[in-house]
Amino acid sequence: MNTHAKRIKDLQYMLRKHGLDAMVMGRGLEVGFLTGFYLEDCVMLVSRVDAWVFMPKMFVDHFKSKVDFAAAVAADPSAADRAAAKVKELKFKRAAFQPEAETYKRGTAWRKAGLIEKDGLIGALRAVKEGEEIENLRKSCRIAARAFGIVRPHIKTGRTEMSVYRELEDVMQSLGAKGPSFNMIVGFGPDSSMPHHETSERRLRNNEAVLLDYGCVYENYCSDITRTYFHGKPTEEFRKVYGIVAAAQKAGLARVKHGVRTRAVDSACRDLIADAGYGQYFIHGTGHGLGLEIHEFPRMNTVVEAVLRAGMTVTVEPGIYLHGKFGVRIEDSVLVTKTGCEILTETR
Amino acid sequence: MNTHAKRIKDLQYMLRKHGLDAMVMGRGLEVGFLTGFYLEDCVMLVSRVDAWVFMPKMFVDHFKSKVDFAAAVAADPSAADRAAAKVKELKFKRAAFQPEAETYKRGTAWRKAGLIEKDGLIGALRAVKEGEEIENLRKSCRIAARAFGIVRPHIKTGRTEMSVYRELEDVMQSLGAKGPSFNMIVGFGPDSSMPHHETSERRLRNNEAVLLDYGCVYENYCSDITRTYFHGKPTEEFRKVYGIVAAAQKAGLARVKHGVRTRAVDSACRDLIADAGYGQYFIHGTGHGLGLEIHEFPRMNTVVEAVLRAGMTVTVEPGIYLHGKFGVRIEDSVLVTKTGCEILTETR
Repeated sequence: MNTHAKRIKDLQYMLRKHGLDAMVMGRGLEVGFLTGFYLEDCVMLVSRVDAWVFMPKMFVDHFKSKVDFAAAVAADPSAADRAAAKVKELKFKRAAFQPEAETYKRGTAWRKAGLIEKDGLIGALRAVKEGEEIENLRKSCRIAARAFGIVRPHIKTGRTEMSVYRELEDVMQSLGAKGPSFNMIVGFGPDSSMPHHETSERRLRNNEAVLLDYGCVYENYCSDITRTYFHGKPTEEFRKVYGIVAAAQKAGLARVKHGVRTRAVDSACRDLIADAGYGQYFIHGTGHGLGLEIHEFPRMNTVVEAVLRAGMTVTVEPGIYLHGKFGVRIEDSVLVTKTGCEILTETR
Repeated sequence: MNTHAKRIKDLQYMLRKHGLDAMVMGRGLEVGFLTGFYLEDCVMLVSRVDAWVFMPKMFVDHFKSKVDFAAAVAADPSAADRAAAKVKELKFKRAAFQPEAETYKRGTAWRKAGLIEKDGLIGALRAVKEGEEIENLRKSCRIAARAFGIVRPHIKTGRTEMSVYRELEDVMQSLGAKGPSFNMIVGFGPDSSMPHHETSERRLRNNEAVLLDYGCVYENYCSDITRTYFHGKPTEEFRKVYGIVAAAQKAGLARVKHGVRTRAVDSACRDLIADAGYGQYFIHGTGHGLGLEIHEFPRMNTVVEAVLRAGMTVTVEPGIYLHGKFGVRIEDSVLVTKTGCEILTETR
């Protein structure tokens, strides 16, 4: 069976398990996950036995030529209205919409049409990767990791952050990537201390930190990697901070395994950094799931409760930020396995 | 006054005009529009006299170093909860959220916190461009237009769509763009007939249509342009269809002017194509606003009611799609003026 047809079957299995008759989805990403056809302005309706995609007329011919396991329905001007009419026509009693994925306006309309709230089903399906998805993620991560080895030797005194950004992009594309997977960060010196730095025209000087937080999209799948190093002779403080972050990342990676709580991974990193006296400078979560989106379920931080499962892909990325001075973050994307994890962004 | 500080003042003026005490915003784009700082996971609260941005701790130092006209408040884990608490503390009776911009889940929480629904204020502020924004849009469009002249001579028999995509991207970046403004389309032959074509490894053959729908981001502002031409000796049918689309686009452009209804522009294009006997093959709207987003207010189609105002930037992009054969779309980005419009993506 086709990968996407199988995903729809998996969702239909979950609908039965959760006592639902049907579910509506409006995000292009979700429609793409279930059909292979990434479309905005569409609404997909999946019942226990059928699947429809309500879409602007202009997409119908193309969709039909690619997908035979979900019905394409021309629905100008409102795909949502047509989907609601279908729910009514088929007298679904327990049809659900996703309160975190729909806008308040559209969710209110779904409620009026008698639909109920149910989050997390598609998120759970998407979180555990299978077959081709894992291959695409492996390739996406391998491209990002290889780019570091190619680009790093060219990062010399006088280069601008933006020129390095573009070289990373070009190299990843020459290795087969479609493009960057997010608004990547190249930060030199104090710029490395800002987790939200916007890559600028600043030039690299002798003896300062270099932070590269980047990744690519390959066949719709995102990779994410951060490398930090010192350009020149590292100061004692940089050495010390780098050592702590590296040890924290190692501790976090060592905890990643099927069945482990995400907070346990976060604690492993956080406790090590706190014990070293830098707790207040680790100012973000330890990692996040990634796949079709650069940030997806599960988040690994001090707040969210979730359990890792084999097949999930997550980042592990502790950091220490000394504002105005320098920051160190070390990040890898990993595949969770039964016995631990496989690092997908290994660099030499 | 700083551009962004002025935008906050404009919003505060609108709050008073609409009898509102305050408004909350959760989209990174909107926070960026009002502060210059494009951040996710933040909530901005603007009252008639003050402005706060509730954000993850990790962004606070950076934000403070750049923005002095809005208060940065560390608010882990939930920026929304902190914003709601502030609304309560200041006893705002008529504080609003945007039902089309918030998720159902968050909107429901705002409702519970006593906020009311109000859409369109920020959209209206963003739609009319001023000063630096217009310069950025001009530059963004000029880069896209220039890229056509540079890349077109290289589009020869045997080139793949994807290689042309990358050359467009590279050329625009070499001219100063940050990157592409959307998932651009390069379609050869029958691929040009699908408005949602995914650029592929298909190679260009002699005597077929070439469609390039692309654009770039320059200083956060998006451009959008489509050019279609025939590689080789045009068939009579291509010539005829191209002539109709070109005439339709000219008719649409001629209608664009301050005070004109968007539907009048749509009709000008649509009627001309219908009169030529191709009405059923013009399967999408005539255009859309663009700026910080590639698609924003106002849409120009048969459904939406809006009025053009001087300072808006919109696309005019009629098309005819003969499925499986070829498609022709001609698109320019234009600035609406008091007397007509200025074409920003003029090519030679």
